[in-house]
Amino acid sequence: MAEGRSRGRAGGGAARRAARSAPSFEVARFIERRIPDLEILDAEAIAIIEANAETVLEEIGVMFTDNPGALNLWRAAGADIRGDRVHIPRGLARSLCATAPGRFTQHARNPARNVEIGGRSLVLAPVYGPPFVRDHASGRRYATLADFHNFVKLGHMSKWLHHSGGTVCEPTDVPVNKRHLDMVLAHMTLTDKPFMGSVTDPSRAQDSVEMCEILFGADFVAENAVMTSLININSPLTFDATMMGALEVYARAGQACIISPFIVGGAMAPVSVAATLTQVLAEVLAGVAYSQLVRPGAPVIFGAFVTSIDMNSGAPTFGTPEASQILYGAGQLARRLGLPFRSGGALCGSKLPDAQAAYESANTLNAALLGGVNFMLHACGWLEGGLVASYEKFVIDADQLGVLHRLAQGVAVDEAAQAMDALREVGPGGHFLGCAHTQAHFKDAFWRSDVLDYKPFETWDEEGARDTEALASVRVARLLNDYQRPGLDPAVHEALQDYVTRKKASQPDAFV
Amino acid sequence: MAEGRSRGRAGGGAARRAARSAPSFEVARFIERRIPDLEILDAEAIAIIEANAETVLEEIGVMFTDNPGALNLWRAAGADIRGDRVHIPRGLARSLCATAPGRFTQHARNPARNVEIGGRSLVLAPVYGPPFVRDHASGRRYATLADFHNFVKLGHMSKWLHHSGGTVCEPTDVPVNKRHLDMVLAHMTLTDKPFMGSVTDPSRAQDSVEMCEILFGADFVAENAVMTSLININSPLTFDATMMGALEVYARAGQACIISPFIVGGAMAPVSVAATLTQVLAEVLAGVAYSQLVRPGAPVIFGAFVTSIDMNSGAPTFGTPEASQILYGAGQLARRLGLPFRSGGALCGSKLPDAQAAYESANTLNAALLGGVNFMLHACGWLEGGLVASYEKFVIDADQLGVLHRLAQGVAVDEAAQAMDALREVGPGGHFLGCAHTQAHFKDAFWRSDVLDYKPFETWDEEGARDTEALASVRVARLLNDYQRPGLDPAVHEALQDYVTRKKASQPDAFV
Repeated sequence: MAEGRSRGRAGGGAARRAARSAPSFEVARFIERRIPDLEILDAEAIAIIEANAETVLEEIGVMFTDNPGALNLWRAAGADIRGDRVHIPRGLARSLCATAPGRFTQHARNPARNVEIGGRSLVLAPVYGPPFVRDHASGRRYATLADFHNFVKLGHMSKWLHHSGGTVCEPTDVPVNKRHLDMVLAHMTLTDKPFMGSVTDPSRAQDSVEMCEILFGADFVAENAVMTSLININSPLTFDATMMGALEVYARAGQACIISPFIVGGAMAPVSVAATLTQVLAEVLAGVAYSQLVRPGAPVIFGAFVTSIDMNSGAPTFGTPEASQILYGAGQLARRLGLPFRSGGALCGSKLPDAQAAYESANTLNAALLGGVNFMLHACGWLEGGLVASYEKFVIDADQLGVLHRLAQGVAVDEAAQAMDALREVGPGGHFLGCAHTQAHFKDAFWRSDVLDYKPFETWDEEGARDTEALASVRVARLLNDYQRPGLDPAVHEALQDYVTRKKASQPDAFV
Repeated sequence: MAEGRSRGRAGGGAARRAARSAPSFEVARFIERRIPDLEILDAEAIAIIEANAETVLEEIGVMFTDNPGALNLWRAAGADIRGDRVHIPRGLARSLCATAPGRFTQHARNPARNVEIGGRSLVLAPVYGPPFVRDHASGRRYATLADFHNFVKLGHMSKWLHHSGGTVCEPTDVPVNKRHLDMVLAHMTLTDKPFMGSVTDPSRAQDSVEMCEILFGADFVAENAVMTSLININSPLTFDATMMGALEVYARAGQACIISPFIVGGAMAPVSVAATLTQVLAEVLAGVAYSQLVRPGAPVIFGAFVTSIDMNSGAPTFGTPEASQILYGAGQLARRLGLPFRSGGALCGSKLPDAQAAYESANTLNAALLGGVNFMLHACGWLEGGLVASYEKFVIDADQLGVLHRLAQGVAVDEAAQAMDALREVGPGGHFLGCAHTQAHFKDAFWRSDVLDYKPFETWDEEGARDTEALASVRVARLLNDYQRPGLDPAVHEALQDYVTRKKASQPDAFV
């Protein structure tokens, strides 16, 4: 259906004419892995880590701050409550996790964009949270709502991105208490991919649910997951009332949450991979168990955002071997719990989309694919430790996500793939460029980048000897120029806009 | 022992004084993997590929050009010879491969630098073959012997590089027929790491052996592998007389060779992963079998330099999913043959050490670690499809090799690694920066880059907002400035120099 800003203001005719001339673009289905996971923990290591996690939950306990309701739920479930500390008897948290589904569907308003989360799937979502943006022309600056819209548009146009994400950047020009309305509205109207809801306050989570009820219908939302939202654990071992409040809203509404330790190893966890995995497992066990106390069967994801620290500067570091080891290990622990797993992303500490950024990002993207990640936030656009959303890195990373798609397919060995006819036709000393098999298959034989340079040196040099960032900036401009809104029922759009307007008018601006 | 240019010209005293003030630097031992390999081919795929490779050898055959001695050896072994085409009955090549060792030691003149090749080991060697070099200050230009010396020095100073390699760049200012003498001399005198011999002519392979006899003693060379040299197969299915002549020299001398298809998929092999693996296996089976016909027990490595092609431009492409799939699959095939495996490298098509270069390189380095590579040529410094040796990329890549070392170690779960004391000490809501466990372990807890930027944004900005290439150029200058020759018996050095001088004088210069 064609889409206009509202029934009154935009005629459907213009929108339809635009749609007919829209540049075509493809969107890939979420990844279904046909390759094995890499398992770096042996049985002994798993047994030690799982036993230690239970010891942590029982002896040390976890803190649910400012949340008497949570303490009551835990007490009723059999935990030992001391102050706001919840001591969880061995095995209790794991048994509570059993009601969480191993795989669920997150619905998009366009059913072709629905994603399956869990099992052998991998769903890719963009960067989340940066207060700054960077682009090739103007450098680093505070993010605005216009930037937010641009990143949602880039995500919509990205073939290998399955999910529109959430806070692709912070629209710092909008009051803090009203941002979530503009962000959710943008994800609902500028793309038809699935998206995330607000978690910065329980009331904002509730607003997100109510907007989904407008978009999808209340009955549909009551029965289906239409948002996957990010609930960070305040590591070590602390569950604050804001995040738990949002989790409670979403769980009660049957909406999906990622329950995710946020750990810079050495600061929020010990300087050891095994101990960090112990803490991650304890935290996720407690968080997922709590979600199931709120509503048994609520869809949740085992999250692990874990990186290491540079002990010289105190800076978080990315793409490091320890971060990869933790990702691989956490994946094993999640699969043993039968839960979908979130980790990875095009994470980097670099200030620029340069070699450092790419090396660090590639290390993490590869680990995420092979470590069995089911939901990858920050899959593109992340720069400078997550402080910056980079326009150029968004399209460079998004292009590389195609590598993951192809690698995950595994190796075909049907008759065409065996190509014995080609080997016979060409024989020793020949070449395959013109043979019948090549002519029949070359178009889809190899993945091809839409960003990187494959030109001869002389051509590349004559065209300005551009580096990857410069090439990417051209692609950013073209995608934003070619972008067109996907169709949306004007009545629905109007109702969403009215909701946002009414909510914004109901309270004064707040900037903290 | 202190080292001088010759007994007559350089006093040992100055060299000894220099050695005392030399900046200390570490060299890591070769990697022993404590993590599993990723196996992407299932049993059915392996069975198909192995059966098809035997069909290729029997029906299509391989060509040994201008090499009647090779045809005689094959005929005597039971092959069907038609012209220069060798048709190898099913199973014959594989059975001939059985005498090749599964693991061998390549000796360095400093025994602490010996490397084990095969089994769970991974040995890292630098870029091989570029006619051009690039550096940050002066851009791209033809390589010279001075560049060659610089790259050998950088390799010597690189902690994570175990091997000095071979043609780290082509010294184009030296006549083609004399280059090998200067190259081998440089590897023997500027570093004490192991190295490769010349393969561009059988006589140059013989020169390499004779120089090793001077360096190591003839008896030692007769009994031990002191070189690992690169024998490329002229894919598809062709073994030319030059490369086979060099292989024959090395095999008879008990020196190690990598027997390696060189394939740009789509040009030298069909546009399919399974068919390319079939061809790789057929070629390596024939080449390794031939080495064992020349001398049963000669140490050899199953090589696979395979990349994909961009069907739009015809350019080879690197870091692609198909190249990774071929690497993973070839590793499985090599392990089933019980042979050491060579593949991978910091391969890229980019013209600059930028994001493209790093993404492509990281994809291949990660695949090489997880795909079970035992010997990785091109592990650092490769740029522009191998046309260029990059000073800056050399140190960026070499730094990332530290990631592979740490990742390969696997996850420790001893009591210190479990860190239950730290979890108990800190508890919910605390931080780990100052706890006893962190104080005891932070120095070695996490891998740390020697090149990448970990500084706060403001500091980085004030210092010039340098990208990775600019930071790397500082490191290149420092390493070359700090470099000192490792000690070498002056008599040996003099004898090597005399050999080179005599050999050079014995023939006119040739530049083709």
